[in-house]
Parts: sequence; C-alpha cells; structure tokens
Amino acid sequence: MKSPTRLADLITALRTLPGIGPKSAQRMAYHLLQRDRKGAAKLGAAIDRALTELMHCELCNDFSETPICPVCASNERDTSQLAVVEMPTDLLMMEHTQNYHGLYFVLMGRLSPLDGIGPREIHLDRLIQRASNGVVQEVILATNFTMEGEATAHAITELLHARGIAVSRIARGIPVGGELEHIDSGTLAQALTDRRRYDSK
Amino acid sequence: MKSPTRLADLITALRTLPGIGPKSAQRMAYHLLQRDRKGAAKLGAAIDRALTELMHCELCNDFSETPICPVCASNERDTSQLAVVEMPTDLLMMEHTQNYHGLYFVLMGRLSPLDGIGPREIHLDRLIQRASNGVVQEVILATNFTMEGEATAHAITELLHARGIAVSRIARGIPVGGELEHIDSGTLAQALTDRRRYDSK
Repeated sequence: MKSPTRLADLITALRTLPGIGPKSAQRMAYHLLQRDRKGAAKLGAAIDRALTELMHCELCNDFSETPICPVCASNERDTSQLAVVEMPTDLLMMEHTQNYHGLYFVLMGRLSPLDGIGPREIHLDRLIQRASNGVVQEVILATNFTMEGEATAHAITELLHARGIAVSRIARGIPVGGELEHIDSGTLAQALTDRRRYDSK
Repeated sequence: MKSPTRLADLITALRTLPGIGPKSAQRMAYHLLQRDRKGAAKLGAAIDRALTELMHCELCNDFSETPICPVCASNERDTSQLAVVEMPTDLLMMEHTQNYHGLYFVLMGRLSPLDGIGPREIHLDRLIQRASNGVVQEVILATNFTMEGEATAHAITELLHARGIAVSRIARGIPVGGELEHIDSGTLAQALTDRRRYDSK
C-alpha cells in the first residue's frame, strides 16, 4: 500500500524547496490538491513563467526580465559607485534607504566552501570586470556581517585592491535606536574601534 | 524600484503553500531560480500532473489515479469494516500496523467551523451512503484525538446511530512503551476509565 505515484511525485518535488521536510511536503501537497487547486495551478504556472522569462541582468546580475535591468539602464544613477550585495533582497533594502544612488552588483550568494559555493558561483570574475570599466571609482561592499558575508567581503577586497580599485565597507556598529545594554559585546567592541571623531568647528 | 513581475508572481504563488510567509517564499524563489532550476521544473511539472491526473476514489475518497483505488478494488479486504480517517497519511499509518484489513473512508479534513470546514467539506453525506450499503457492519472512527477530531467523531457517531449503524472508536490510553510518570493526567484518567478487565481462566 503506497501513495498514488502522482501524489508521491508531487511530495518529492515539494521537498526540493529549502527547509521543507517530508511532513511539510505532505501537508503542502494535500493543501494544494484539496483546499487550493486554483493556487496550485497558479504556482505551477508561476514557476514555468519565472524559469522561462527571468534572466540575470548582464551588468548587475540581479534577476531581470530584460537583458539590462531598469536600475542599470537608468541614466539617473551615479555610475562611479558600485555596491556589492549578496541577494536581490539586499538590493531592495538598499533602495529603500533612498540614500544610495549608485549601481549594484548582486553576487546571488556568498562564499561558502562547505556548500560548494566558491568565487565562480558568486561571479567574482564578472564583478571584477564590471568594477574595472574605468567609470567605477569606488566599490562599496554591502555583504552581510555574518562569517560568510565577511569572508566574501575580504576576498573581494583582495581581488579589487590587486587591481588598484578603491573598496569600502558599509559601517558596522550599534543600530539606530539600539541600547548598549542589549548589544552583544562583539558589536560594541567594533563600534568602539570604528568610532568616528567629531570635528571641532 | 520593485522586483521583476515574474519574480514577484512566483513569490506570491509560493505563499499559497501552507505555513509559508513572505520571507520564506522569497528564499524559496531564489533557491528555485538560482540553485535548483531542474528541481523547479520538476516541481512545476509535478503540480500540473497531480492536478490533472489525481482524482478521489469514488468509494473511500482517498487520492487515487483510478476511479476506484487499489485498496477498495482489492478482494482481499474485509468489506464489513469501514475505518474513518481524517487524511491519506492516517490511512497509510493504519496500513502500516498490518492489523486492519477492512476498508476506509478518508474525510480529507476534520470538522472545523472556524476554518469554514463543515459536514459538507468532509463529505459526511458520502460517508453515510457508503456506510449504509448493507455490507458494512461496523464503522471504526480513527479520527485524531484532538478537539476537532473528537468533535468530528462525535458528529459522525450521531449521524450513523440515527441510521442504526454500529460505530466504534479506536482506543485512547497509554502508548506502548509509555511510562505513567510522563503521561499527561487527562490521558491517564481516560486509560483508567477505559480499563480492560482481564478474564479469569
């Protein structure tokens, strides 16, 4: 006695989603087939269309429906600055600040040797080519302040410095509204080290 | 600045999956598009095929690829017993016991008025018709021992008793290997009430 093949196939396929184990996949399959067939049909179609119609922007590597994405195609951006982020969400977060008007490069990941993600998987060759176009004056590293994000920033810094390109890293410190009492000591130590001197008038 | 439409559509579609919020949907979309396009294509195809090729068995209401499922079509089953379970997984659990040889009725849910799931959604009319075929001698309620499962069992009992059909409920008590010290008092109280008298030889 086994599940029907088509049901078993669907459950197996749902397990390719990150963080989804056998029980969740089963619950999802029942939900799709039993409670939300319209949603299921939409999901199937959305996957197909995303796979066929989404590409990576030739310049910034973000997901795009056109060879050059709207940000890279815009002539209102500061082409002398290039921010390097891990994921498309990070790019969106940067845009939400409304405080950055340069261009981007999206790594689509971070160095993670254990997961088999090396320099090639995060397209460092394309980043270097992009940063060496003679127009970019500063590469701003905006990878996460995790172990992997820091390692990625370090590797990129080495590569770009070897080519004489200026590199900066977004600041590490106490978050806005943060109270010292609730900040971990590592962050506080960094905030001390990276303290900014107030100029006397 | 927004995500490309096809990406946004995919993220929205993934949120139809139960328990998936905006952040998880985003992570899933990136994973499918970036790290596992083959898996994504398989998932899309599996959804399509499941939607078109899976139906409900006309007798037991379980998912099936044929109008009558293999269990109902088998002539090795005891047609006098009909076990009522909530979900296809529960049916599989019953089969794993290798201790039940009767037939099934799968409700595909449980009574849950707050979620809009009433007697019609769990096909009680079909269950009653199925149980009144003159062959079924006993309906064994194997819904969960949750509030909703119990309410469902109660409602079915009322409906079947009104039609003079014998109803039983799987036993509630201490699990095999269970230690009294670690059992909640409600279960222990029930195990006491439902105690079985050992016949003296």
